[in-house]
Amino acid sequence: PEPHPDDVPQKDMGRYGFPVTGAEMRSYANHVLSYDQVKKTPRWVAEHLSNAKLQGSAERKHCKFRPDPGVTELFTAHNEDYLGSGWSRGHMAPAGDNKFSEQAMAETFYLSNIVPQNYGNNAGFWNRLEMYCRNLTEKFEDVWVISGPLMMPEVGADGKKTISYKLIGKHDVAVPTHLYKIVLAQRSLSAPTLALGAFVVPNQPIGYDHPLTEFQVSLVDLEKLTGLRFFPKVDPAGLQNLCELDTCKLLDFKEFTLYITGRKVKGANTTAKLEKSMSDIKNLGITPDDYLLKLYQQKREELQAKEAAQGRKP
Amino acid sequence: PEPHPDDVPQKDMGRYGFPVTGAEMRSYANHVLSYDQVKKTPRWVAEHLSNAKLQGSAERKHCKFRPDPGVTELFTAHNEDYLGSGWSRGHMAPAGDNKFSEQAMAETFYLSNIVPQNYGNNAGFWNRLEMYCRNLTEKFEDVWVISGPLMMPEVGADGKKTISYKLIGKHDVAVPTHLYKIVLAQRSLSAPTLALGAFVVPNQPIGYDHPLTEFQVSLVDLEKLTGLRFFPKVDPAGLQNLCELDTCKLLDFKEFTLYITGRKVKGANTTAKLEKSMSDIKNLGITPDDYLLKLYQQKREELQAKEAAQGRKP
Ligand SMILES: [Mg+2]
Ligand SMILES: [Mg+2]
Repeated sequence: PEPHPDDVPQKDMGRYGFPVTGAEMRSYANHVLSYDQVKKTPRWVAEHLSNAKLQGSAERKHCKFRPDPGVTELFTAHNEDYLGSGWSRGHMAPAGDNKFSEQAMAETFYLSNIVPQNYGNNAGFWNRLEMYCRNLTEKFEDVWVISGPLMMPEVGADGKKTISYKLIGKHDVAVPTHLYKIVLAQRSLSAPTLALGAFVVPNQPIGYDHPLTEFQVSLVDLEKLTGLRFFPKVDPAGLQNLCELDTCKLLDFKEFTLYITGRKVKGANTTAKLEKSMSDIKNLGITPDDYLLKLYQQKREELQAKEAAQGRKP
Repeated sequence: PEPHPDDVPQKDMGRYGFPVTGAEMRSYANHVLSYDQVKKTPRWVAEHLSNAKLQGSAERKHCKFRPDPGVTELFTAHNEDYLGSGWSRGHMAPAGDNKFSEQAMAETFYLSNIVPQNYGNNAGFWNRLEMYCRNLTEKFEDVWVISGPLMMPEVGADGKKTISYKLIGKHDVAVPTHLYKIVLAQRSLSAPTLALGAFVVPNQPIGYDHPLTEFQVSLVDLEKLTGLRFFPKVDPAGLQNLCELDTCKLLDFKEFTLYITGRKVKGANTTAKLEKSMSDIKNLGITPDDYLLKLYQQKREELQAKEAAQGRKP
């Protein structure tokens, strides 16, 4: 007669503890993530965006990339893994979504929120996608965004699939082949229709001739690719396509260059740098709009006054 | 004045739920595992072995490989992914560790406990490693074993590291480049010294000329490679090296062939098959030992009586 399984002391199974996967949810001031201890990157980072959170004076320049103090040394990435690797430190929850709080913004610089991202992608297409998400808060009271790295298979000449990706630095940080972003938007609690867009973007420079919709995928396809279930409390049947309800149109070259020049003008600390920004944009064949001209004139007066005062110093 | 983070309604963050990683612990009659929803394999499988659990009459032949009913269809492997792929269905918690319970054995055939494993590795080296673990229960009252798949980087000519692995089947089941196994053994609660051995074995055929110790790695190195913390309740300072305290010696070619032939003899259902097993082993140049000869004679009498009875049927 074989013993009933219950007769075998199962308490022995865990006497010295079970393996610790470390995939549990980690909460920060304005984002939540699951960390991947093998890849040394997040597996997903979730945020809630609202117009209120985009107001405020928190600034990137006060923030520093650094290991997440909550991730054990054995499994953390370090700045040295990225520096000189050819890959930038790409935020998943963007710093710019956290203007309302220095603390929230500083926490987005923990390396638990960072993946190795192509420089051009980070500064260009992905940046424009992040701006699109922020702009959605003008039309939608609540916007949820989930971002993360993705390893996409390649199909060989023999029809067989292979996943292949690089590791960088002493701590073997995994370089994703792609990045994903899911956006869920709700007009208001009184107009609760939900619109969703899911996107898979290759981790490389992407030009202005590629619309965002080119990278749109279905929710279920993204779930299969990532092994994650997203927005489990949403009824998929009630979802609208964000790119039909809204535009999914990113800033074009001119709009984006005006925006970037505006940031440079605001940040200029010498008249020489200020004039350089303005001549650069003209060399690109773009005529500054009224908003940029006004920023420029304000800044010029401010810098001239400052430099005159410095010139008077003994 | 910027709003204090606590003034921002954080409850909104999770209004539609957070991504579900699915890495939580899953418990079965005699094993525990964490499932990897991207790779469609376990990430680790933990067992407790004892001499008592190895006694009993549960048999593989009553078991069938099948999707784990606890894993959602979106993320499960299917038998069809393996069949014709060139890869066997390799148990992480071996069926043979569960002789005491049909249910426990049947549960090891859930595909949540299976990875794509090289046929020769599965039937050969890995099988011998599993037997070594079972044999440990003769000297140690409690043996804990954790097994799982591993993706090891390759270093290119440029010194850069790449991780590369195949996917098989319609559901993209990831083929591990390596397998790992960690063994923790304790003589008894009254002699509680703990011995540990950690091994990383390439997912390919491995001959008898390779000792197990060739594949031994340190616990911390395996933790870095897998992104997992093992036996968190053990003090590493008090650990002995299993391969020093015990032998870490697997069965050699002759011992293993005698064992395998013994299983064939026990399972033979015709005298023709029985005689074939015995002539096969002699052709390999191995002289049956007394134990095998006794098994053979018992089985021959049993089958002859059965066949004589069938011959008498009208
Ligand atoms: Mg960025
Ligand atoms: Mg096996």
